[in-house]
Amino acid sequence: MPTDPAAADTASFADVGLLSPVTLGHDSEVGDDEVLGALIAAEVALTRAWAAVGVAPQSVADVVSEALGWNGSGRPCVQHGVALHRLAAAAVAGGNPVIPLVGELRARVPEDVRAWVHRGATSQDMLDSALMLIAHRAVASALADLRATEEELVQFAADHRDEVAAARTLTQHAVPTTLGLRAAGWARGVARAVQRLEATAHELPAQLAGAGGTLASFVQIGGEAAARELPAAFAAELGLAAPAAPWHTQRWPVTELGDALAQATDALGVIAADVATLSRTEIAELAEGEGGGSSAMPQKQNPARAILIRSAALRAPQLAATLHAAAALAVDERPDGAWHAEWPTLRELLRLALGASANAKQLVGGLRVNDAAMQHNLGLSRGLIVAERLSLVLGPVLGADRVRQIVAAAGAGADLSELLLAEPAIAEAGIDIAELLDPSKYTGLAGQYVDSLAR
Amino acid sequence: MPTDPAAADTASFADVGLLSPVTLGHDSEVGDDEVLGALIAAEVALTRAWAAVGVAPQSVADVVSEALGWNGSGRPCVQHGVALHRLAAAAVAGGNPVIPLVGELRARVPEDVRAWVHRGATSQDMLDSALMLIAHRAVASALADLRATEEELVQFAADHRDEVAAARTLTQHAVPTTLGLRAAGWARGVARAVQRLEATAHELPAQLAGAGGTLASFVQIGGEAAARELPAAFAAELGLAAPAAPWHTQRWPVTELGDALAQATDALGVIAADVATLSRTEIAELAEGEGGGSSAMPQKQNPARAILIRSAALRAPQLAATLHAAAALAVDERPDGAWHAEWPTLRELLRLALGASANAKQLVGGLRVNDAAMQHNLGLSRGLIVAERLSLVLGPVLGADRVRQIVAAAGAGADLSELLLAEPAIAEAGIDIAELLDPSKYTGLAGQYVDSLAR
Amino acid sequence: MPTDPAAADTASFADVGLLSPVTLGHDSEVGDDEVLGALIAAEVALTRAWAAVGVAPQSVADVVSEALGWNGSGRPCVQHGVALHRLAAAAVAGGNPVIPLVGELRARVPEDVRAWVHRGATSQDMLDSALMLIAHRAVASALADLRATEEELVQFAADHRDEVAAARTLTQHAVPTTLGLRAAGWARGVARAVQRLEATAHELPAQLAGAGGTLASFVQIGGEAAARELPAAFAAELGLAAPAAPWHTQRWPVTELGDALAQATDALGVIAADVATLSRTEIAELAEGEGGGSSAMPQKQNPARAILIRSAALRAPQLAATLHAAAALAVDERPDGAWHAEWPTLRELLRLALGASANAKQLVGGLRVNDAAMQHNLGLSRGLIVAERLSLVLGPVLGADRVRQIVAAAGAGADLSELLLAEPAIAEAGIDIAELLDPSKYTGLAGQYVDSLAR
Amino acid sequence: MPTDPAAADTASFADVGLLSPVTLGHDSEVGDDEVLGALIAAEVALTRAWAAVGVAPQSVADVVSEALGWNGSGRPCVQHGVALHRLAAAAVAGGNPVIPLVGELRARVPEDVRAWVHRGATSQDMLDSALMLIAHRAVASALADLRATEEELVQFAADHRDEVAAARTLTQHAVPTTLGLRAAGWARGVARAVQRLEATAHELPAQLAGAGGTLASFVQIGGEAAARELPAAFAAELGLAAPAAPWHTQRWPVTELGDALAQATDALGVIAADVATLSRTEIAELAEGEGGGSSAMPQKQNPARAILIRSAALRAPQLAATLHAAAALAVDERPDGAWHAEWPTLRELLRLALGASANAKQLVGGLRVNDAAMQHNLGLSRGLIVAERLSLVLGPVLGADRVRQIVAAAGAGADLSELLLAEPAIAEAGIDIAELLDPSKYTGLAGQYVDSLAR
Repeated sequence: MPTDPAAADTASFADVGLLSPVTLGHDSEVGDDEVLGALIAAEVALTRAWAAVGVAPQSVADVVSEALGWNGSGRPCVQHGVALHRLAAAAVAGGNPVIPLVGELRARVPEDVRAWVHRGATSQDMLDSALMLIAHRAVASALADLRATEEELVQFAADHRDEVAAARTLTQHAVPTTLGLRAAGWARGVARAVQRLEATAHELPAQLAGAGGTLASFVQIGGEAAARELPAAFAAELGLAAPAAPWHTQRWPVTELGDALAQATDALGVIAADVATLSRTEIAELAEGEGGGSSAMPQKQNPARAILIRSAALRAPQLAATLHAAAALAVDERPDGAWHAEWPTLRELLRLALGASANAKQLVGGLRVNDAAMQHNLGLSRGLIVAERLSLVLGPVLGADRVRQIVAAAGAGADLSELLLAEPAIAEAGIDIAELLDPSKYTGLAGQYVDSLAR
Repeated sequence: MPTDPAAADTASFADVGLLSPVTLGHDSEVGDDEVLGALIAAEVALTRAWAAVGVAPQSVADVVSEALGWNGSGRPCVQHGVALHRLAAAAVAGGNPVIPLVGELRARVPEDVRAWVHRGATSQDMLDSALMLIAHRAVASALADLRATEEELVQFAADHRDEVAAARTLTQHAVPTTLGLRAAGWARGVARAVQRLEATAHELPAQLAGAGGTLASFVQIGGEAAARELPAAFAAELGLAAPAAPWHTQRWPVTELGDALAQATDALGVIAADVATLSRTEIAELAEGEGGGSSAMPQKQNPARAILIRSAALRAPQLAATLHAAAALAVDERPDGAWHAEWPTLRELLRLALGASANAKQLVGGLRVNDAAMQHNLGLSRGLIVAERLSLVLGPVLGADRVRQIVAAAGAGADLSELLLAEPAIAEAGIDIAELLDPSKYTGLAGQYVDSLAR
Repeated sequence: MPTDPAAADTASFADVGLLSPVTLGHDSEVGDDEVLGALIAAEVALTRAWAAVGVAPQSVADVVSEALGWNGSGRPCVQHGVALHRLAAAAVAGGNPVIPLVGELRARVPEDVRAWVHRGATSQDMLDSALMLIAHRAVASALADLRATEEELVQFAADHRDEVAAARTLTQHAVPTTLGLRAAGWARGVARAVQRLEATAHELPAQLAGAGGTLASFVQIGGEAAARELPAAFAAELGLAAPAAPWHTQRWPVTELGDALAQATDALGVIAADVATLSRTEIAELAEGEGGGSSAMPQKQNPARAILIRSAALRAPQLAATLHAAAALAVDERPDGAWHAEWPTLRELLRLALGASANAKQLVGGLRVNDAAMQHNLGLSRGLIVAERLSLVLGPVLGADRVRQIVAAAGAGADLSELLLAEPAIAEAGIDIAELLDPSKYTGLAGQYVDSLAR
Repeated sequence: MPTDPAAADTASFADVGLLSPVTLGHDSEVGDDEVLGALIAAEVALTRAWAAVGVAPQSVADVVSEALGWNGSGRPCVQHGVALHRLAAAAVAGGNPVIPLVGELRARVPEDVRAWVHRGATSQDMLDSALMLIAHRAVASALADLRATEEELVQFAADHRDEVAAARTLTQHAVPTTLGLRAAGWARGVARAVQRLEATAHELPAQLAGAGGTLASFVQIGGEAAARELPAAFAAELGLAAPAAPWHTQRWPVTELGDALAQATDALGVIAADVATLSRTEIAELAEGEGGGSSAMPQKQNPARAILIRSAALRAPQLAATLHAAAALAVDERPDGAWHAEWPTLRELLRLALGASANAKQLVGGLRVNDAAMQHNLGLSRGLIVAERLSLVLGPVLGADRVRQIVAAAGAGADLSELLLAEPAIAEAGIDIAELLDPSKYTGLAGQYVDSLAR
């Protein structure tokens, strides 16, 4: 029986995502159930590591693995029979859940192997390692969605390589760009976040250092040679990187992960910001495939996924900051509060990255383009979207002052094309006015920056 | 049947507090179950308000109240029969849980009153009001613990009014102070946070403004006179303040609450910082009543509650910052992501304040004082804890240079008392050297600042 | 030669605002020169307070005031002759500028009054009090601009009371609103921030507590009765509130100020967000009076002030969070880093609030409204901006299903007016279709919420 | 008269570091003077790049370089003659300093080369590139101090490789460790930060993308082939990395830098936290070489540098968060406020990293160790610092219950050594009680983790 039957009665589940729709559906990846399974996996991995380095008999590792639901390297234990709610309640007294958990686990294994559960370890070894295991899996999951998002964007950029649109700076139409280049920028942001997350995930270390970070207990139990090998053996069982040294109070594995997760929500936030803006009723160049509707207001096509992604992107930076603050305050050989502040913060960051990635994949996959709106908007400045080009091309021909006069007149309502046709010097210089005013002829290297995306 | 029987199967509860022991036990106050009940209460309150202003028949309000588990003003509905997990899942599509909830609620009331459910309202009206209802109750609960903490501290300060201890500045012994004054400072910090939270709680407004913040739908349905009265009637049903105007995008009710909650964790954080420091093995002046133990290291008396409070105090500021950032980005008549970022952030802040307050009450109630350690520590500087006094009193007698020499000699190991006895001018000036060196005679107005606490 | 020849000599000014245009022009209010003057004022105020309570001769206060540039209550000293750069350099060794400053000041007064400079005080007394003095003045200055902004907005709202515009929620047109109501919301946000800042400014306390927070040195010097009166006398000289008790490590005066400043930038941020959005080329309903231009792209009307305000509003929340974190870590009788982190952070927050307020006043004063664009945009949904109204009014007449069909057909391109004219039941019910479709007839209580602004 | 007479004329320098002693002395590295020189260098680099790709004559590049104070690749211009204060004031109107700067620069070069100044560029190109140039130099400077700090720590760790000390977890003595291992942890944290900063510095890209990010103006001016080469040529002139693509709204170069800087202050923050703690009067194991003194309280040895570093470490995380928030809000082809929020924030982060690094180098170089205090503290638990070892070694001999009784008796005051001598089974098992109780025999792999530092 995996769950405590009493749990259903307690009605104490705090948070299923009702207030954070962006993270919904990711409970099973970073929820307390998963954390519990990971904590138990860390405990079992330790016993297995003792066997791997030849100190414990292999049979002990087998018995413990069997009794506690070992599910293979890199995976949380399952069907371990530990009741989540009871354990959580017991965690308050000691300030962390490992202390009561060890008691629960020892009670679940035969007496003769009991001493090999949590052998030589400290709470932080188990909790740090379990969180890294959870993070490793969650990052892999987020990466899958991020890579899919990137691929969709690369294709989207190629599909819209030469589709001209207004580039906007400081909210105003500036010059022409292409939808392809805009999407290529999104893709590059996601690609960089993927690269950073991959590098981080590759280095997520297990923790095994004992009560004071010296591994003295492991040396005492297994001798120096075995103790030296133990952390790497432990890490291998968990599918994590072997630590170069204890990191009880050197928390860069946590902050680098947090930074990379924030970088991911940043990159997705940019996409969401653009989609939300370009979905505005007045702009209408893009729409989500399945925009959130409103029964009373059917004209609305809410960019619901963009909005959820933005909500994640607004929250992630401050959570990453909390991890840095905690890292900077990691005093002694285990800090007096900073360490505890990391746990829920890192978990929420993982959840946000997971949720934003999943929503981004859906958003990008379903994005609809309104060509007519893009064309319409390009014309809103009545030709002045190429004003920069006019000054570059016509300045030498007409003089900068004359160009400014023409542009000003057009800005005030005159027809730009007619104004230019009235200047004989232009035709004399062999300049084709229609080509000059065509936004699609003034997109620079946009196409090439799309092409260079393909790797 | 209050809970969906399927819920137990889904195993999708994300977070019962395993990773945030400080908030444990506060699920029922701010958890999703409670939020759901509050959302339903907001919906019922609207129907009741329509009746209160004379537009809907009273019988409609009665029927809806009965059907949806109305539990009285200022309380979430109970036994409403809406399945939390299913609703949460349905919330993703539209970006918020109100849209699917309205369907669920209408299905639960007789057809002839159905139109009076969510009559004229927009999602934000219900969600903002529900969150304020939750906040109102959570703040009341936190306030109870904060007031109890303050009372304990006032008593503690009185009990230790004249107990002399070393004042430490920049980590170093400076001059004498009293434990009473230190506790009086803690009490004042908590008292101020209480005052601020009380003021905020008193003003938490309901929200009722309709789709675009004009109340047009309410005017259309009930006429202008009734629509004017409706927000206050609605607020009264929820036990909240009547809004002076719509606050869909003026989010000071949220940020002021967030600031006050952070102020509470700040005030408790100071207590926790002092208790953690004064519990250090080398200082040992204070100990928690039920310090977290360690089976392998029985010499440890971990200040477990102080550590949990500190973890909350380190996390709260960044959450409050997220609320401000969201407020500053509240564009249009409902923002595209900033609003959604508030919900889980505010909830977590409430949870931290609740948890820190509960832990502080326990901590303060059980605080143990080690008089001997305080005395021992006072002597560590071998008399120089009163060096400032020496320069003030003896400077005019011996000259500043001579005092500096004496103090330097004492700092280098000489006996301060003997050095002073060797100066005849001191006795001649009628100065009692023993009194001069007695730390308890150099505590200034410490006692009075304790006495002035009693209100 | 445009460069100041003296600049090469000092070459040490770090920051004149080149990278923070929003704060430019506010150097003289919160710059280091001003802080130095405030520190000296705090020192002089202490001497004056000793005289006020009858311990020092009045002549001592007069001499010190004269020598150190006393400029009246509530003002920094001027013409004191202390070299800022040299003092700043000397501040590093001791970690704060007060220690070297006292030496400088004593050297500037006659020997016989020298002992009355910094008499009994600790560095924190002077630095906290000086910062509160700076804050008091800066807040007064910001309040002037905020009140002017509020007044302009109240007038603007009245001027545009009935000007109909599209209300946008989640980026999409929802229902009609008025420009007046939108501006009334802005005004209410600013008014609330003003109220909060005023309350905070009124309570900004002086600090006077001595080395360990007991005032023991003051008691030693002046006796208990005088020492009791001293903090209030000192505060009066500085134009600050008398402290109820020492607040060396109870930092709510700092965090409450920080919170109120962030609330001000939040409120201005909302205005800026709306102005930036409504200035978009495609929306064009508003424009800044003196939009930043671009010589190469004359079509651009950059909402330059809105952008600067937004940059401030994005930065302020994290600075306020730093103040909370510092407050929560205020250990001992003076903390080991948290106190030092407050100084530059509070100053930058003051600067942002000053800059954002000044820019907002200019922005609001010059705001230009494009009525035609508002009308044009209202029509973009071809009548569906009143879709909510149709369902409320026509639902009972035609049935909800039929209304949905009509609205869907209009959404797909059909003429809404014609669709309705084709429904005889509408005319039979006495409903005027033109009135029904008129956005200006569906603005609810918008006008009244404008009217209720006038106080 | 100590004051600089010129100061009174300008009176506009805002901030020389008076309130941020930790950053003092780093003005010349990131101050506005330096930023101005870097902006001009970016402008000159553009002209030079036009020549490098063969579009402009080399003579034009030479003339412009000469006129505007070009100082070689990777360096800000000097002696350019542009007045900082006037330029800063002019920056407000357009929202950034580049617009007025271009006018100033053009006025400083001969008319015939004027067109080649700012040729084809947009403000963001220049500002982003200038900030990266400043960052590149500041990071190099910080890295020098960080590497020196790391080297000192490696040596310090080797020097104290086997010096036994109490490991403290959750404020309590846990087991023995060594000072060498503690310092090795510090060194590893700094080394990782160095590695991350180096990688980031290596990739800091120039920006050159034109008004809308397409490089269209550069293509128009120089043709496609030259435009393709231009960004790399431009980057080479500035000593920066060539951008793979425009990053106007893909801001990872900024956030990755911000994250790495925060990681540096985190790593230094840990050292400072430990030094501040271990300098406490009651602990006294470490002292800064030149601790900040107090004339009135000569017993104080304030850990002044540790405190300043901590103040930086508390501020940096929130600044890095602002950079992430700005990155996530980088909408359009240039954002409406988020970009502007980056500039002062990044600069302050650089300043904090520079200041903290410089202080850390000094702190570490002068750190003094009090061996006697370490020995004294190790004995505070009267032997129980090895309680964990007792349970591991004696458990199998005496039974776990008996060991617990002994340890409890010792905890209550009995002499641990005598209690053990009274157990004949221990001697029978060949266990040397003195060795068992010797903390230096229970330090595990501490020495090896020190040795493995040497690379």
